[in-house]
Amino acid sequence: MKFPATRTGPSIRRLQVGIIGSSEADEAMMRLAEGAGRVVAKLGAALVTGGRDGIMSAASKACAEAGGIVIAVIPGTGMEEANSHCHYVIPTGLGWARNVITAIAGDVMIVIGGAAGTLSEIAYAWMYDRPIIALSESGGWAKRLAGESIDHRREDTIVDCRSVEQLEAVLRELMPKLRR
Amino acid sequence: MKFPATRTGPSIRRLQVGIIGSSEADEAMMRLAEGAGRVVAKLGAALVTGGRDGIMSAASKACAEAGGIVIAVIPGTGMEEANSHCHYVIPTGLGWARNVITAIAGDVMIVIGGAAGTLSEIAYAWMYDRPIIALSESGGWAKRLAGESIDHRREDTIVDCRSVEQLEAVLRELMPKLRR
Amino acid sequence: MKFPATRTGPSIRRLQVGIIGSSEADEAMMRLAEGAGRVVAKLGAALVTGGRDGIMSAASKACAEAGGIVIAVIPGTGMEEANSHCHYVIPTGLGWARNVITAIAGDVMIVIGGAAGTLSEIAYAWMYDRPIIALSESGGWAKRLAGESIDHRREDTIVDCRSVEQLEAVLRELMPKLRR
Amino acid sequence: MKFPATRTGPSIRRLQVGIIGSSEADEAMMRLAEGAGRVVAKLGAALVTGGRDGIMSAASKACAEAGGIVIAVIPGTGMEEANSHCHYVIPTGLGWARNVITAIAGDVMIVIGGAAGTLSEIAYAWMYDRPIIALSESGGWAKRLAGESIDHRREDTIVDCRSVEQLEAVLRELMPKLRR
Repeated sequence: MKFPATRTGPSIRRLQVGIIGSSEADEAMMRLAEGAGRVVAKLGAALVTGGRDGIMSAASKACAEAGGIVIAVIPGTGMEEANSHCHYVIPTGLGWARNVITAIAGDVMIVIGGAAGTLSEIAYAWMYDRPIIALSESGGWAKRLAGESIDHRREDTIVDCRSVEQLEAVLRELMPKLRR
Repeated sequence: MKFPATRTGPSIRRLQVGIIGSSEADEAMMRLAEGAGRVVAKLGAALVTGGRDGIMSAASKACAEAGGIVIAVIPGTGMEEANSHCHYVIPTGLGWARNVITAIAGDVMIVIGGAAGTLSEIAYAWMYDRPIIALSESGGWAKRLAGESIDHRREDTIVDCRSVEQLEAVLRELMPKLRR
Repeated sequence: MKFPATRTGPSIRRLQVGIIGSSEADEAMMRLAEGAGRVVAKLGAALVTGGRDGIMSAASKACAEAGGIVIAVIPGTGMEEANSHCHYVIPTGLGWARNVITAIAGDVMIVIGGAAGTLSEIAYAWMYDRPIIALSESGGWAKRLAGESIDHRREDTIVDCRSVEQLEAVLRELMPKLRR
Repeated sequence: MKFPATRTGPSIRRLQVGIIGSSEADEAMMRLAEGAGRVVAKLGAALVTGGRDGIMSAASKACAEAGGIVIAVIPGTGMEEANSHCHYVIPTGLGWARNVITAIAGDVMIVIGGAAGTLSEIAYAWMYDRPIIALSESGGWAKRLAGESIDHRREDTIVDCRSVEQLEAVLRELMPKLRR
C-alpha cells in the first residue's frame, strides 16, 4: 500500500523515534521511559508517542525538557486531550484503532512495558517493517517479546535492550542506516 | 469521544493550521497555496497537510522556506512517501480514510480548491468543530462551500476569504481565541 | 488499493444496497426511508446501514419486515449498540470514521436527507466509485447534491430520484449491471 | 466508546462467530479451519472472517457448504476482492487497519494459526472484551497464546481447544450466555 508523493529534492524530514507502552506504569517503568525520552532528544530525533499518561507522558516530558521535539498521535479529536509535554498533536478520532498509527510513527520503535494496546502496536510495527527495540527490564510485552520473532516475514527479532545505555548504543548504530 | 490525558501543567503545544486541497492543482491554485503556507509560517503556527502533491506540496514548500514547521499525515505506511517539504511525517496506512485525520489536524482548517477527498475532509472538520476558512478564488469545493453552512449543528459558516491578505487578517483575529 | 483474494469459483455473494442518512429525521423522511427499505427487500438485495436511529432505523425496520436481510456497520464496539432491526452487526470502534465504510458498504448507495456525516459518506462513495442515488424530496445533502457531480473523476452524477417508485425503477435497471 | 442506538423491541440480531488466522496455511491448518467453519454453521451462528485466503477461505467454504451464513470484512474497497465463499462483504478500504474490525466482528473469536496480523487481532479482541478461543494444534499465535492472559484487565485467559470437537463443546456452552 504505497502512496508516494513527488520528491522535488532532498527531504527536510527529521528522523523520528516512536515510544509505545502503557498509560499505567510503576516508578521503575517511568524512569526507563524518562531515560529513553532523554536519549531520543540527545540523538536529535523527534519523539512520537500516543500522547497519553504513564510511559507516554514520562518519555515526552523528559524528551522535551532535554530540548527534543515531541509529537502526540491521540485517540480522540480534541487537541487538548494530549498530555502537557507535546509540541505537536495529531488527533485521530479513531479510539484505540489509532494504535495502527502510533505503531509506525517512528523510523524505529521502542517498547516499554506494555499491555494489550502495546501488543497491537508491536504487531503492526512488525507488519510494517519498523525496527523494534524492547526495554525488557520494563516488564509487560516488552519483556515477553524481547529477543523474539513475531512471524516468518522478517529475519530479525525484537532487539532486547537491558538498559537505557544499551538503548542509546543500539540507536546510535541504527539511525544512520534509516532511509529518509 | 473524549480520551483526555492528565495535564500536569500548562501545555507546550504550538498552534497548528491545517491546509486541505487537491493533489492536482493549476498555477493559480498553487500560488494561493504558497501564499497560505507563508502566512502560517509568519504567524508562528505549524502547518499540517496530507503530505502529497499539488496544494499540499506548494503550501508545505512555502511554509518551510519561510521558516515554518511542516507536518504531513500521509495515507501510506512509508515515511519516504511524503513530499520533500515536511519536517515530520505521520504515516497512517489508512489509504484515503486518513482524510478523517487531516480534516482535524489543525486548530483551524483552510480549504484551497478541492475535489471529493477535500469534501470528505470539510465534512469531518465540520463534525469535529474545527473553524473552516475557504480560499474561494481557488475554485473546487472551497468555492462551492465558501460562506455556506454544512448542517444545523453549528451556527457559523465556512468563512469566505477572497485573498491571502484576507486569510492572514482572519487568522490573526482567530488564533488568540483557540484553546490550547 | 486492491487486496484481491483467490476466487475458486463463482461467488455466492448477494447484492447489497447501502442507505445513508441522518440519525435525526422528520416524519416525511422516515416514510421515504421505509419505502426505500421495502424496495431493497423486494429486489432481493441485502440492506446495509450505519445501524443507528432515524433514517437507518426506519429503513432497516421496513426492510426486515418485508423479509429482507439487514446489516449494520456501527461506530462503537458493542454488538448491542445497533438498532433492533439488524440481522448482522459489524462493530468498528472507529467513531465517525466508520463513515468511510458505510459509504461503500453497498454495490449502490442511496442518500436520504443527510447532515455532515452523510456528506462525508457521499464524498467517499464518490471516491470509491459507487453509484449514488439521492431521494431528493428528503432534503438535506440528498437534495443539495441530487443531479450534481462531486468532481471530475467521474462522468456520471448523483442520480436524482423524486419518489420511492422512481427509486425502484432506477435500481431495477442498475442492479443487473453490477458485478459480483 | 459507546454509541448506542435506540432499541424499539427485541433485536433480530443473530449470533456471530469470528474466525481469525493467516491467509497462508498448510493442509492441517486448513482442515482445522474447515472443521471450525462447519461447527459455526451447525450451531446456527453467522461466520465473520477477513474474507481472504487460507484459514479465512477454508472456514468460509466449509461454513457455507454446511448451510451457514458467511460475512467478510475486507481490507480493500472492491466487493469482488473477497474469496468466493461469502454471502455478504463489508469493504473497508483500511488496509491492514481493518484488523481492528475483524478482531471484534464476532460475539466470540476463534484463532487458528496466525502470524502478525492475527496477533494484532488477538490484542484488539482482548481489549474489546471478546471471548477468545485458540485452536492450539494449528500452531502460530493460536499455539503461542492458548491458555495465556494478554494483560491484567481481564481475569479469563485465551481458551485452549485441542480439537474441533472440543471447540464445539466450548461454543455450545458459551453461546447461550452471550448478550444480544
